[in-house]
Amino acid sequence: MAFEYEVIKECKQSGARIGKLYTPHGVIETPVFMPVGTQATVKAMAPNELKEIGSSIILSNTYHLFLRPGDDLIKKAGGLHKFMAWDRPILTDSGGFQVFSLAKLNKITDEYVQFNSHIDGERLTFTPEKSIEIQHNLGADIIMAFDECAPPESEHAYTKIAMDRTHSWLSRCKEYHKGHEETQALFGIVQGGMYKDLRIESAKYVASMDLPGNAIGGLSVGEPKNIMYDMLDEVVPHLQKNKPRYLMGVGSPDCLIEGVLRGVDMFDCVLQTRIARNGTAMTRHGNLTIRNNTFSEDFTPIEDDCDCYACKNFTRAYIRHLIKANEILGARLLSIHNLRYSIRLMEQIKQAIWEDRLLDFAKEYLNDYGTGLYKG
Amino acid sequence: MAFEYEVIKECKQSGARIGKLYTPHGVIETPVFMPVGTQATVKAMAPNELKEIGSSIILSNTYHLFLRPGDDLIKKAGGLHKFMAWDRPILTDSGGFQVFSLAKLNKITDEYVQFNSHIDGERLTFTPEKSIEIQHNLGADIIMAFDECAPPESEHAYTKIAMDRTHSWLSRCKEYHKGHEETQALFGIVQGGMYKDLRIESAKYVASMDLPGNAIGGLSVGEPKNIMYDMLDEVVPHLQKNKPRYLMGVGSPDCLIEGVLRGVDMFDCVLQTRIARNGTAMTRHGNLTIRNNTFSEDFTPIEDDCDCYACKNFTRAYIRHLIKANEILGARLLSIHNLRYSIRLMEQIKQAIWEDRLLDFAKEYLNDYGTGLYKG
Repeated sequence: MAFEYEVIKECKQSGARIGKLYTPHGVIETPVFMPVGTQATVKAMAPNELKEIGSSIILSNTYHLFLRPGDDLIKKAGGLHKFMAWDRPILTDSGGFQVFSLAKLNKITDEYVQFNSHIDGERLTFTPEKSIEIQHNLGADIIMAFDECAPPESEHAYTKIAMDRTHSWLSRCKEYHKGHEETQALFGIVQGGMYKDLRIESAKYVASMDLPGNAIGGLSVGEPKNIMYDMLDEVVPHLQKNKPRYLMGVGSPDCLIEGVLRGVDMFDCVLQTRIARNGTAMTRHGNLTIRNNTFSEDFTPIEDDCDCYACKNFTRAYIRHLIKANEILGARLLSIHNLRYSIRLMEQIKQAIWEDRLLDFAKEYLNDYGTGLYKG
Repeated sequence: MAFEYEVIKECKQSGARIGKLYTPHGVIETPVFMPVGTQATVKAMAPNELKEIGSSIILSNTYHLFLRPGDDLIKKAGGLHKFMAWDRPILTDSGGFQVFSLAKLNKITDEYVQFNSHIDGERLTFTPEKSIEIQHNLGADIIMAFDECAPPESEHAYTKIAMDRTHSWLSRCKEYHKGHEETQALFGIVQGGMYKDLRIESAKYVASMDLPGNAIGGLSVGEPKNIMYDMLDEVVPHLQKNKPRYLMGVGSPDCLIEGVLRGVDMFDCVLQTRIARNGTAMTRHGNLTIRNNTFSEDFTPIEDDCDCYACKNFTRAYIRHLIKANEILGARLLSIHNLRYSIRLMEQIKQAIWEDRLLDFAKEYLNDYGTGLYKG
């Protein structure tokens, strides 16, 4: 059945889980890291490479695609899968986060949000219904409810107003989505800023909507990571066990591990490809700034035990040369590595869950990584 | 035997030929189009993709690699093949063309050329011996003699001075190359600007050096194409039949066809990848400016009958979107297509030679292409 989620294993040591989410474009095994393809392409990557590194689902951004090339055009092309030649599952966000962070915001009411495009300044309006309509045109397997992301420094009073609005918009999204439930799964989003009482209230409300999946938004927006982990500890117990939990916009190695330990099933992050283009490689022992002089004559791969195309064929010295010379292949090789690194980390996490030793794995890994385990 | 060249077929209709050049990294079948990897990478491409599109040899630039990352570093890495993970043949130019076109030239004498680096302005000196020494460190299969490229508008008198200097430098290069003949083939370069008498004199001199291959430089530098074709008609008859002939820096579709008809075996050109990054696709019917509005809802491939990754998976509308959105994948897909287009054209040319109908093919193709056949 479309969008059924089954938990197939729980780690006896940590309680973390492995699950399967069924979608029209295939099964997603969780926990999963989703590469981000903002403009209908994961930056510097081609679809065949995404498959080669084991991506089972990618994310794309409604706000960006609405502005360029337009959701109508993508619908004419046969939908986002066909347009970008990606035949595995896709998740689109609602545009909420971008409207509140990237665009110049003009006006927000309970009815709509008015903003100016970050590309050409055009004045535009989003409603919950408009966001879902765009996402219907795009045709992703998983779509997200339109939410208000209040700034993290907001007072309790305003954070509650934004949360209540997000809840009312969720009802409207669910209503507008009626009739599409078999082809696209709508996920609700828990908000509530850095306030435990609001987070709990929001988690209960979102769970009560009984959608195929629940997301947690508005975290990793500048707060210390420990606060995010504490919020997850409050929120997750209120979200159904038999539905996937998606922690939005989070994906650094330590957050992946800490998130899975807390019952999160899905993650996405632009970090991997963004720092790649900037010349940084992710490793178990922390990030390497490949453009540094240290690597100029380092004829070893980024990571000895990595199985990606970059590590199997090229040295740090060569990749450093490419980055210094501003060559596209440099950004490509580091993007491949950083994404494969994150997906491989998820594979290692799953292996540890199968073997009922995720806490041990987490402690070891995060000691190597340099952060140590929170509450470890 | 290393660097033996055998002609395996001559077209009865045109006289054009197919040959095989044996190198330490494999056999190159000619006529061949060589993608250019200036900075030890063919821009936007990975080695596996170059193999997939059928590249049997690539070119790299001595001047650029000398400046960054340095030929010493590449030698330490195990040579250029290993450094860039390309195990098929490589040709390096001598740096002559770049010193005279890209760098700020300070002083030229019969002994040496002094110039400033285009990267950091450092004052540097090249001699014929230095160019060969760098090329020994890089370790390409085919290396080029250091030559003076006089500006195309030069008077007869100065063009002759530059040509004589190029000839004397060729002798010095050959001398300095002694002992390396089994692992690297040194090609001489015919100069002589736009003067037939000088071109013939130069061709005779270069042929008399009896090197494993002969190149023709200083063409396609701004002169009308017909003048280039006329120069080829003068030069080629003086270059040995049993040695490959390389027309440097030339590779547009019409020039490939006209060149092969005149007995040229090897070509290289940066055009394919340069215009790709700029949003232009090469086709049998001329170039397409993919970023144009015309293609915004064109859901067909760049070329219907092309077998490249871009044409088999993506539409003009999608590639246009990528280019407009400044996404790396746009440059990648057009680079793949433009290079595959050129290599496929060479395959078609070879097929026509096998079938003794290259003149017919050339007429048909260049009519479609829009230029028509010169002297057709």
